[in-house]
Amino acid sequence: MFEEKGILFILSGPSGVGKGTVRQRLFEQETHLKYSVSATTREKRAGEQEGIDYFYTTKEQFEAMIQNGELLEHAQYVENYYGTPRAYVEEQLEKGNDVFLEIEVQGALQVKENFPEGVFIFLFPPSLEELKNRIIGRGTESDELVRNRLKEAEKEISMMSEYDYVVVNDDVDQAVQKIKAVITSEHCKRERIEAEYKKILEG
Amino acid sequence: MFEEKGILFILSGPSGVGKGTVRQRLFEQETHLKYSVSATTREKRAGEQEGIDYFYTTKEQFEAMIQNGELLEHAQYVENYYGTPRAYVEEQLEKGNDVFLEIEVQGALQVKENFPEGVFIFLFPPSLEELKNRIIGRGTESDELVRNRLKEAEKEISMMSEYDYVVVNDDVDQAVQKIKAVITSEHCKRERIEAEYKKILEG
Repeated sequence: MFEEKGILFILSGPSGVGKGTVRQRLFEQETHLKYSVSATTREKRAGEQEGIDYFYTTKEQFEAMIQNGELLEHAQYVENYYGTPRAYVEEQLEKGNDVFLEIEVQGALQVKENFPEGVFIFLFPPSLEELKNRIIGRGTESDELVRNRLKEAEKEISMMSEYDYVVVNDDVDQAVQKIKAVITSEHCKRERIEAEYKKILEG
Repeated sequence: MFEEKGILFILSGPSGVGKGTVRQRLFEQETHLKYSVSATTREKRAGEQEGIDYFYTTKEQFEAMIQNGELLEHAQYVENYYGTPRAYVEEQLEKGNDVFLEIEVQGALQVKENFPEGVFIFLFPPSLEELKNRIIGRGTESDELVRNRLKEAEKEISMMSEYDYVVVNDDVDQAVQKIKAVITSEHCKRERIEAEYKKILEG
């Protein structure tokens, strides 16, 4: 019909930055978001459900999915495959549901290649904010310490270049508020609304 | 210092769409926003203050400002000039303040030419939403009525093409919420934050 399509949001960032906590808090507040369900070759554990916790596949099935380009990204941990099936995401988007994917930086970059129309959010460690304050501050730190911090900061900044938004995780609630604002404002992007209305007029 | 610069937001849309009401409600909630102060050649009225209500100029001064490119836009109504001085806007942005400008479509297009780094929000009449429902609906309207509505809708849609965001004003509070989300998320844009941090590291 004339329903607006959903948007795929990808939350990523350096390990240890608190992606999981932010995602959890966000889902408590934004119950309309669909969490992207991964495929895996690892065994189903007690209490887990097919299509809710994971899509469970054999190694052969998973490798066929890789071959056929059916995954937005995949990785191997401890002999098991994990990946994001494109079909599930597209099905939800077609239904008008926003899909949310929380993932490591390497996975996010794969998704970016396979699904560039996604909205990529980089969760940023507050350490650079602190670094900023320290550099501005009293300058009592050793040169070597400052140099190391600068190097670390440069690495983190270079990681953000593929993303659309950067949210500093100095406070979980504030970070969640910002991500919610990104979700709302992305739905107001002119390109999306214009395309929708043009479709209506031609329909 | 390392302060983030402010952003110029421009709210515009067809006449009668309710820009003034939305802007007023927004300012009640977002007291950090600076309203762009216009220059005018019309006489100061009782109770008005220079630099708060308007910057008051003579006709000659105003025409010199036009000549020198000191206005982001200007127009003439009833023999008086009205315009947006670039200097005031840039001064506020440098201080880290967001500036908000509510303006007719013609003026917004001038601002876009002179200040393309602004964020342009188109306030959209709910009539197209209604039209959408009617087209989907029972189809009991006359062909001519539908044709006229479609023509009107096409005109309004063609106006939005220069804007970054489109907010449907079917409910003032919802429209305000969306504009607030745009303001928040624009501050999270990667380009802005990346530039800021790079400046820190080089500084």
